[in-house]
Amino acid sequence: MNLKESYKYYENIFSNIGGTESGGLTRLLYTDEWANAQRKMKEEMEAIGMTAEFDAVGNLIGTLVGSDENPKVIATGSHIDSVVEGGTLDGQYGILAGLTAVKSLLKEHGRPKNSLQVISMAEEEGSRFPYVFWGSKNLFNMISSEERESMESVKDGKGVGLVEEMRKHGFDFKADSDKSVEIDKFIEIHIEQGNYLEMIKKPIGVITAITGQKRYKIKITGQANHAGTTRMGYRKDAIYAYSKIVKSSIDMAIEEGDPLVITFGNITVVPNTVNVVPGEVVFSMDCRHPDGFILNTFTKKVEKNMKAICEEMGMKIELDMWMDAPPVPMDHGVITTIENTVKEMGIDYEIMHSGAGHDSQIFAPRVPTGMIFVPSIDGISHNPAEKTEDDDLVLGIEVLKNTLHKLAY
Amino acid sequence: MNLKESYKYYENIFSNIGGTESGGLTRLLYTDEWANAQRKMKEEMEAIGMTAEFDAVGNLIGTLVGSDENPKVIATGSHIDSVVEGGTLDGQYGILAGLTAVKSLLKEHGRPKNSLQVISMAEEEGSRFPYVFWGSKNLFNMISSEERESMESVKDGKGVGLVEEMRKHGFDFKADSDKSVEIDKFIEIHIEQGNYLEMIKKPIGVITAITGQKRYKIKITGQANHAGTTRMGYRKDAIYAYSKIVKSSIDMAIEEGDPLVITFGNITVVPNTVNVVPGEVVFSMDCRHPDGFILNTFTKKVEKNMKAICEEMGMKIELDMWMDAPPVPMDHGVITTIENTVKEMGIDYEIMHSGAGHDSQIFAPRVPTGMIFVPSIDGISHNPAEKTEDDDLVLGIEVLKNTLHKLAY
Repeated sequence: MNLKESYKYYENIFSNIGGTESGGLTRLLYTDEWANAQRKMKEEMEAIGMTAEFDAVGNLIGTLVGSDENPKVIATGSHIDSVVEGGTLDGQYGILAGLTAVKSLLKEHGRPKNSLQVISMAEEEGSRFPYVFWGSKNLFNMISSEERESMESVKDGKGVGLVEEMRKHGFDFKADSDKSVEIDKFIEIHIEQGNYLEMIKKPIGVITAITGQKRYKIKITGQANHAGTTRMGYRKDAIYAYSKIVKSSIDMAIEEGDPLVITFGNITVVPNTVNVVPGEVVFSMDCRHPDGFILNTFTKKVEKNMKAICEEMGMKIELDMWMDAPPVPMDHGVITTIENTVKEMGIDYEIMHSGAGHDSQIFAPRVPTGMIFVPSIDGISHNPAEKTEDDDLVLGIEVLKNTLHKLAY
Repeated sequence: MNLKESYKYYENIFSNIGGTESGGLTRLLYTDEWANAQRKMKEEMEAIGMTAEFDAVGNLIGTLVGSDENPKVIATGSHIDSVVEGGTLDGQYGILAGLTAVKSLLKEHGRPKNSLQVISMAEEEGSRFPYVFWGSKNLFNMISSEERESMESVKDGKGVGLVEEMRKHGFDFKADSDKSVEIDKFIEIHIEQGNYLEMIKKPIGVITAITGQKRYKIKITGQANHAGTTRMGYRKDAIYAYSKIVKSSIDMAIEEGDPLVITFGNITVVPNTVNVVPGEVVFSMDCRHPDGFILNTFTKKVEKNMKAICEEMGMKIELDMWMDAPPVPMDHGVITTIENTVKEMGIDYEIMHSGAGHDSQIFAPRVPTGMIFVPSIDGISHNPAEKTEDDDLVLGIEVLKNTLHKLAY
């Protein structure tokens, strides 16, 4: 089997564990589909000669021990869970690409000098329980004993507890004495989930950082009034203030230029009635930039502008920045190794950042980490229509394989 | 009893028929509260010597026949129904003011030359059934036989039919042979439901027209995209287009000046998620002006601007103008009579239009009609907090009484 056949073999198996009628995937943490996928993954890892073990919470780690006396550990992988009615690539592709690459390396080059690991992480999406990075955080024992206690109250939409479901599947919290994984380098391959590579017509992205991100909940308080009897000069129209804020903030973001992005995705208007001047608008702002300094400076400027608009209009504005995730840089050494690999392969690649979050952002502060992106058709993700051309999927696996070869042989 | 005591006597009775715990009023068409209020109103009309009759659908007409051989009919009144948790003045004040004025005229001047009528109209709000002006439209036999058939399918929020409820209370459709009311002049007194009189500190408004009104449902179609991975230049952000449209439309309305008003009261965003660029925005636009030509010209300009914004941004816009109610002018003769009355009384009045709809807009094309406004505290209406100072309520009744005196004696 060549790389493509090998990958397609795995894809065919795993896209059917939790596969939906629409051709997508719903595989939520600690469901039967999730457990079936992890068990099948263990079998497939063992089938190519890896040892495969679950950790306490259900992360699956497949290992091919290196021949060196003290082999380093070169790991790859991603998450096995999906969103509700998601696609078959987000997360899953990273695990299957790793398995395909290791299988091919073994066949062509035999046992590596350094150990190779493929990690099928339990959870990244936060789609069943309101908790993200449950898999990768547990790999590094990042769940404190205080947090462990509070986890007992984490429930899914049906009121079923995360801890209860974890135990049902035979898993439990890590013991305080459990060690972190010992990994020397980590490489994650993932679909872009955006349309940038597609637009610039390049098949591979080499990732330098995961973007910094601030999220705000913002409330403007004006005054609800009758739409027919309140003259314009006597209004405190919260949607008028909102429109000024959104327009000028996006204008400012466009002027600031790439790669800064700003999104006003959510809005709630009170009373939201055709014939009443809106008295209150609550809305979200999501702003991202891979450079923390630029992100901070820009959002400060936007905040100041919003406040000035509302002050001039005699309205109240309250800003709650409830997420402030700084950018996570990838490791320069790993970036260079990936870049040298794609250069040697003669691939037209792009040095870029990731606009979305990934397991790698948990790894990167702890282990030298790098990421490889392949294009997403129309940028679609978290949707059954999530697709990547087969040639791009296979080229990505080849880049991963050659990078692992450089690091492990 | 003076005018105030007389009015307070009625107010005390009727604000308790359908009165709510919050001090407001819920009196919906063809409910028991509604029927109790109309029955009690009949008693009170008869108590001062009027004859009082229900028409087929439940409008109550109290008449004091004039002494002339062929007396003209001078009518006043308003609607007995309220919105859900409305105030005790919207509608009810107009009927009680009429009754108070007629009672006082009778006492002071005896029988008039022309007939005086007080009409307690069955319905104006459209709060129980999706139908407005049921009362006034029936007075003028405006319900065609085709419409009568389609009325069978008009249901309230609980699925109870308007016709069924009408029959339950002993009312039914008007027969084809029924005549329209024969009225020579109609005067309605109403609270402003806005804060204009309050702001300019005048106790009486003399109404020249009921505003023209256009309502639109507008849909902008962009493209939903990932908030982190889609660069600004590749977005079709529907909320960005919306913000430009709302800001520039309101800017244009302010530049156009009073009395033009524009309101963007309702919005639905798809998918309305923090981390997704909005792909679709559906919103309302309500635009009003008492001059039909100005209203048409202005909305045409706004429509053109909206389309230009969306075209430039490569987005689709669909406009559906689902309401196009032209302004309804009041009768010049009646306006002059009211204005002369307030001048003689030495009152600081305002010549103005009504920004909201009223029963008078059904009367005005058929009968010479005029309206008198009294101020609303803080402009609040359709709310238990709907209030007007007692002095203003009584002054309004005095203006109505003196106007009726001019016309009927």
